Amino acid sequence: MLYRPSLRLLSATALLATLSSAVKVNPLPAPREITWGSAGPIAIGELSLTGADSDSANAQLVTDAFARSWKAIKDLKYYPQATEAPIPTYAEFPGATQIPWKPAAPASKQKRTTPLSEVHLKVEDWDADLQQGVNESYVLSIGDGGHTIDITSSTAWGALHAFTTLQQLVIYENNAFSIEQPVTIKDEPMYPFRGIMVDTGRNYISTDKLKEQIDGLSLSKMNVLHWHLDDTQSWPVELKTYPQMTKDAYSAREVYTQDCIKDIIQYGRARGVRIIPEVDMPGHAYSGWRQVDESIISCGDSWWSNDLWSYHTAVQPNPGQLDIINDKTYEVVEKVYKELAGVFTDHVFHVGGDEIQKGCYNFSEPITKWFADNSSRTYNDLVQYWVDKTWPFFMDSTDRKLMLWEDVVISGEHANIDPKNIILQSWNGDVVNIKNLTNRGYDVVVSSSNWFYLDCGNGGYVSNDNRYNTQINANLEDGVPNFNYGGIGGSWCAPFKTWQRIYNYDFTEGLTDDEKSHVIGASAPLWTEQVDDTIISQKVWPRAAALAELVWSGNRNGEGKKRTTELTQRINNFREYLVASGVMAAPLMPKYCLQNPHSCDLNWDQDALNKLPGAP
Amino acid sequence: MLYRPSLRLLSATALLATLSSAVKVNPLPAPREITWGSAGPIAIGELSLTGADSDSANAQLVTDAFARSWKAIKDLKYYPQATEAPIPTYAEFPGATQIPWKPAAPASKQKRTTPLSEVHLKVEDWDADLQQGVNESYVLSIGDGGHTIDITSSTAWGALHAFTTLQQLVIYENNAFSIEQPVTIKDEPMYPFRGIMVDTGRNYISTDKLKEQIDGLSLSKMNVLHWHLDDTQSWPVELKTYPQMTKDAYSAREVYTQDCIKDIIQYGRARGVRIIPEVDMPGHAYSGWRQVDESIISCGDSWWSNDLWSYHTAVQPNPGQLDIINDKTYEVVEKVYKELAGVFTDHVFHVGGDEIQKGCYNFSEPITKWFADNSSRTYNDLVQYWVDKTWPFFMDSTDRKLMLWEDVVISGEHANIDPKNIILQSWNGDVVNIKNLTNRGYDVVVSSSNWFYLDCGNGGYVSNDNRYNTQINANLEDGVPNFNYGGIGGSWCAPFKTWQRIYNYDFTEGLTDDEKSHVIGASAPLWTEQVDDTIISQKVWPRAAALAELVWSGNRNGEGKKRTTELTQRINNFREYLVASGVMAAPLMPKYCLQNPHSCDLNWDQDALNKLPGAP
Repeated sequence: MLYRPSLRLLSATALLATLSSAVKVNPLPAPREITWGSAGPIAIGELSLTGADSDSANAQLVTDAFARSWKAIKDLKYYPQATEAPIPTYAEFPGATQIPWKPAAPASKQKRTTPLSEVHLKVEDWDADLQQGVNESYVLSIGDGGHTIDITSSTAWGALHAFTTLQQLVIYENNAFSIEQPVTIKDEPMYPFRGIMVDTGRNYISTDKLKEQIDGLSLSKMNVLHWHLDDTQSWPVELKTYPQMTKDAYSAREVYTQDCIKDIIQYGRARGVRIIPEVDMPGHAYSGWRQVDESIISCGDSWWSNDLWSYHTAVQPNPGQLDIINDKTYEVVEKVYKELAGVFTDHVFHVGGDEIQKGCYNFSEPITKWFADNSSRTYNDLVQYWVDKTWPFFMDSTDRKLMLWEDVVISGEHANIDPKNIILQSWNGDVVNIKNLTNRGYDVVVSSSNWFYLDCGNGGYVSNDNRYNTQINANLEDGVPNFNYGGIGGSWCAPFKTWQRIYNYDFTEGLTDDEKSHVIGASAPLWTEQVDDTIISQKVWPRAAALAELVWSGNRNGEGKKRTTELTQRINNFREYLVASGVMAAPLMPKYCLQNPHSCDLNWDQDALNKLPGAP
Repeated sequence: MLYRPSLRLLSATALLATLSSAVKVNPLPAPREITWGSAGPIAIGELSLTGADSDSANAQLVTDAFARSWKAIKDLKYYPQATEAPIPTYAEFPGATQIPWKPAAPASKQKRTTPLSEVHLKVEDWDADLQQGVNESYVLSIGDGGHTIDITSSTAWGALHAFTTLQQLVIYENNAFSIEQPVTIKDEPMYPFRGIMVDTGRNYISTDKLKEQIDGLSLSKMNVLHWHLDDTQSWPVELKTYPQMTKDAYSAREVYTQDCIKDIIQYGRARGVRIIPEVDMPGHAYSGWRQVDESIISCGDSWWSNDLWSYHTAVQPNPGQLDIINDKTYEVVEKVYKELAGVFTDHVFHVGGDEIQKGCYNFSEPITKWFADNSSRTYNDLVQYWVDKTWPFFMDSTDRKLMLWEDVVISGEHANIDPKNIILQSWNGDVVNIKNLTNRGYDVVVSSSNWFYLDCGNGGYVSNDNRYNTQINANLEDGVPNFNYGGIGGSWCAPFKTWQRIYNYDFTEGLTDDEKSHVIGASAPLWTEQVDDTIISQKVWPRAAALAELVWSGNRNGEGKKRTTELTQRINNFREYLVASGVMAAPLMPKYCLQNPHSCDLNWDQDALNKLPGAP
């Protein structure tokens, strides 16, 4: 065997030296088009904004956003651990064949003497509101000989994205701010709906932590916080009409007052993030509602009976559904909806519609009687009854778009619903369901549980669970994973979805162009059975940033090849950026991997990702 | 079908009312013996400690610990969300059979008028040091007619445990402190070694966060922080002998100075927690060492080659092992060991010994030559060479106990080692390995990866991993989990180990009494590839508290039945207690489950856990 006497031991320092010519900063999400110049670093002085002089309220919003971005640049003094580089060379395994690697030629490096100090902004339509489909494009240009950073955008919301790009372009090196090369970025999102969902019904999330999520969304150019307000477990939302509903908040402290909701909406708007509320109905309903009138709840006092599935009333504890046949239900639902629709400003309102359990309605006298009165009635008819009774007030304006979980038209118990102004959130069946729904004309937000669920893989939360008690790996011999040994371990949607998994999802695969046109974006849900303030940010970030890039500029490079591996350094650096910005994102790798690009790859072959079935 | 017109809707308030007679406070770990009286609540006034008047330094330590405990009681004003109660009644499923439930008779409730204000302590041996096997027993007694809280213990370390029990006994109700009933607790641990392991080589953990772990350990009566100081990825430990080693810390900020190490040791000692250092050798060695002398490292510049297993040099990036045949290695190892053994005060020093990879040594000229010189030599001989060369200085005093991973005597490449003063940490093979090792006379600390690894189930951290790219669940038809669909998802030790899984482990099953006597305890490792300050406490807590009870008083009740379900409320309350105490433990369930005992059970049957094969 061959011994190599002079070991070339890698060090972070040595490696950085070889990269000094590379462009250090790599904004996440990767812009649609980015063209770097080669004239050398551009010094950045004290930046001020010009051009935001419209009378529109959005001009002040943009001015404030710029001030925050510039403060962040100054406070953070950002410099990445390392930037993307080719896989380095390694000593050959005795007997193996060496793969050659040739470093790229260094670019010229010349510092301007006069620092740039003006960011000139031109916004075409200052008044465009932050609503579904608003134009978010921008062009950011730092020319070779120019003296300004030029930003043009259709709307204020595009300008905000330009600022977050700028934040990640300016680095702090040798006691000064600079941008490494002249650059032109033409950027706009592939999809108009890019978000996360946070559940505040299973556990309460403080407004500070919700704002932290908005900060992360804004930095990664996502634009939706889908707020799953309540669930059977608790009702944390103040209502003037029914103040008694917050008796089912976990405590008096764990309540969102309407002032606090308005504050969240304002905080989101200032950062280009829409707040879409969800009141889950008619399933997942117990807490709060029962305080108004016990009769509008079915099966609230039943055993949920997952242990005896034929008797189950809910897929998880605790049970409860709105009674669809009780007239009183609609009186309460209308008032709750009307009041909340007046508080939330987004045109999209999510009204739930998932996981209606037939067993629960065995406990309802009105529904039992309704079925007995006409033996031809089906559970589909029951769901249709709900839709027909609620749509007249749910569709309370021509601007209104109703968002629902796909179940309402696709599950065993479903209704027929006109696709007009309907957005369905698909969480089951992957591309099969997405194709089905878009083919039927529905606009779809992709939240496939096999790819985007942020809570999966953390074990089960239910107690008295004897499945954890098995001391023997029964399938050890045949290598098949079982519950405790390589299997799901209690998490129905195991395994944990890694950033690579999230980024790799080709959710329009097999769709026609027409079907594709109905996919309006994606959202990663975080169900909070095992989440509260202590861990929400680590669950969401930086994984949601992988989704952010997927829906902003996609997961492929100019040649149509998957660029997940290229994202590695970008998302690792972005995670550090998030933490520095106060968003408590979890680490993805040992810091060694950040400091030594590609050292923690699974495959030496940088094209491994494109060698799978289905890859182009 | 039957309709029940008056729904008995459960509310936290209503349920708490029915429990007002129950003993509210349930310390974790459950004491070995606890006898509650029934005379009614005992008012607690401003407590002061008497009896800690020895000249021993430990008397001041105990006095300080009491002051902290009393401050915690006053600051936290603890009151649990709810306490253990029988499963409540639920409406019967139409057609099903109702399971009757009869509430327990309320105990008398009479408040004393004169608050207790003295904690009288009697310690038999003030000078006993905090070392392996020290007596940690205590008796805490609050009599019916007495005027003091009496604590007796063999050593100062038992007194500390009594204080953490006291902290969880005193509740704050109606604007006053009280203990709900007279009580006598006779308590001592089943096992002398109860801990967690934290890896600060993959990612850096700040001293503040290490102290937070010590706080959690102390509150749950655990007594060991096993500190895996370094790994191939980084060397964060200041050494006077070789200051250049911290060039391989992740940054100048991410270094443990010796003052800081001493501070951690002192912080642990003050709370009854031993700090056991580990320097992993001869595997898992690259960073730091290479700065002393490149020649003592093998394969540091190799590709780790998991993608081509026959060429692999490490089980994870980055590679590196100490060169066993190079004499220079022992000069460096001895100096490093000697200096650190002088800094750390515990008699146990962990010297690693896990996962030696043969492929790595293909890169070593001395080892290649050593094998070529005598064709009868095996890799076992190589490991034996390491042991024979290092033991003379590793065993530097008669007090010394060396701790190692089991691999060193049980893996494919192993040595023969006299069991005297050796502690082996078992992480593979579950009870099979534990039996094997104890049978051979080794003392064993149980860290079985199938049960206790706190990092599992979080996906893989390596990048360029095309396994995440598969869009089709190939095994959908036959229901067999695969990588992305119910399978491991990149985590070799998936699934995530829940608190129930941890608590259920009968790790002495099938052992003879003699073998059992060699099991000295257990430790839950946290490897930190995907962990740093942002998430360490949520990974460790409250799951480590399930282990704490398992090794303190076991997982069975007086009848020998598993009491995992009984632990539910206790660990949920303890989690809240941890968070209130500044240990950022993750939630295990929706708060609804805490407020409504047993509502989130999987099985109605409270004895389900004992109906599995193997249960008594």
